Amino acid sequence: MPSHAVLTTVADQPGMLHRVTEVLARHDANIQHIDIVHEPHREAEVYLEFASETPIDQIVHELQDVPGVMRVDIRQSFGKVYGKRIIIIGGGAQVGQVAMGAIIEADRHNIRGEHISVDTIPLVGEHELAAAVRAVVLLPRVKLLVLAGSLMGGEITKAVEDVRGKGMRVISLNMAGSVPDAADLVVTDPVQAGVMAVMAVADTAKFDIMRQQNRRY
Amino acid sequence: MPSHAVLTTVADQPGMLHRVTEVLARHDANIQHIDIVHEPHREAEVYLEFASETPIDQIVHELQDVPGVMRVDIRQSFGKVYGKRIIIIGGGAQVGQVAMGAIIEADRHNIRGEHISVDTIPLVGEHELAAAVRAVVLLPRVKLLVLAGSLMGGEITKAVEDVRGKGMRVISLNMAGSVPDAADLVVTDPVQAGVMAVMAVADTAKFDIMRQQNRRY
Repeated sequence: MPSHAVLTTVADQPGMLHRVTEVLARHDANIQHIDIVHEPHREAEVYLEFASETPIDQIVHELQDVPGVMRVDIRQSFGKVYGKRIIIIGGGAQVGQVAMGAIIEADRHNIRGEHISVDTIPLVGEHELAAAVRAVVLLPRVKLLVLAGSLMGGEITKAVEDVRGKGMRVISLNMAGSVPDAADLVVTDPVQAGVMAVMAVADTAKFDIMRQQNRRY
Repeated sequence: MPSHAVLTTVADQPGMLHRVTEVLARHDANIQHIDIVHEPHREAEVYLEFASETPIDQIVHELQDVPGVMRVDIRQSFGKVYGKRIIIIGGGAQVGQVAMGAIIEADRHNIRGEHISVDTIPLVGEHELAAAVRAVVLLPRVKLLVLAGSLMGGEITKAVEDVRGKGMRVISLNMAGSVPDAADLVVTDPVQAGVMAVMAVADTAKFDIMRQQNRRY
């Protein structure tokens, strides 16, 4: 089925999303991504990516007829722009080094047609880190998680086991605590950890993290 | 109105989102964020953040009664976990340096209760960069964009003007091309650019980018 991306500008009132998705349900469209953009001093917008057999002009036409919809624009899909995501979580010093390795390696692959973005959050505290790890499987397009710190265990380890159970791949820096034992792969040098993270998700690389299970570098 | 976050596990069939949002529309809930998580080998999930006067237990109960909904879990909101986002776009060498400054500065603010994450994409090409800049205003929770490169102009400059018109703040490295003239603030040192980007969005900092309009450092 052909994929499409549209941006609808809508009235700021309850039920708008329900009315917009009604049009897509009518055409058996498979919605792949949706974002609500609602910043102060801006009109509310709903961005949608979906696959449908119905010609896009027909769907745009029907969306324009929905009460409260002010404008409908066809857009380029996010997936094509921002692509696969790697998320790096941990302490600022290490997250910065892993990010550096990952960004420079992503650059080399993106030049050859990949679309890999590198997202980070520096955090402190077992509870906050565990929550961030668990949220990773709810974020769109995330392919791999890197844990970058000096000491991580307890709740964070449980969270790593949970997300690996859901199919997320995890690289851990070599560090104190039980998180390294729960990861797919352990790397000591943070720059190399970032590089390997990108190699593991790039179609333009030959690195298979599944063949590196429980290895330590 | 109290805010809530729920994760629904749903059957992989068209119209699910329409049926789930029907429950929220019935209670005049204001949907603030929504994500569809649909990875291979995993059940489909719809994550929703919304504000509603109706008690959350009542909404969860009604969601569980929707045909095709398999499970409903109350979650902690993304906004609380990943917070404000800074996006850095450009060439790998500079994006890495800006990210380093931003991540280490974000760490200092996150320790004091902020939630700032730093997201990056290394890209090459005028068209690709312009598309990434334009997409920034469609991504959730983005507060500031940093353009990190050595030469940017043309379509990228138009894209910067467009997103600034929508209220996005933009920092540019000092570089060749017309992008610096279109930015709120121009910074020569990439690490300092990253630090200033975080200071500009942190409530724990005193830096006001609106008072720095068209300054160059």
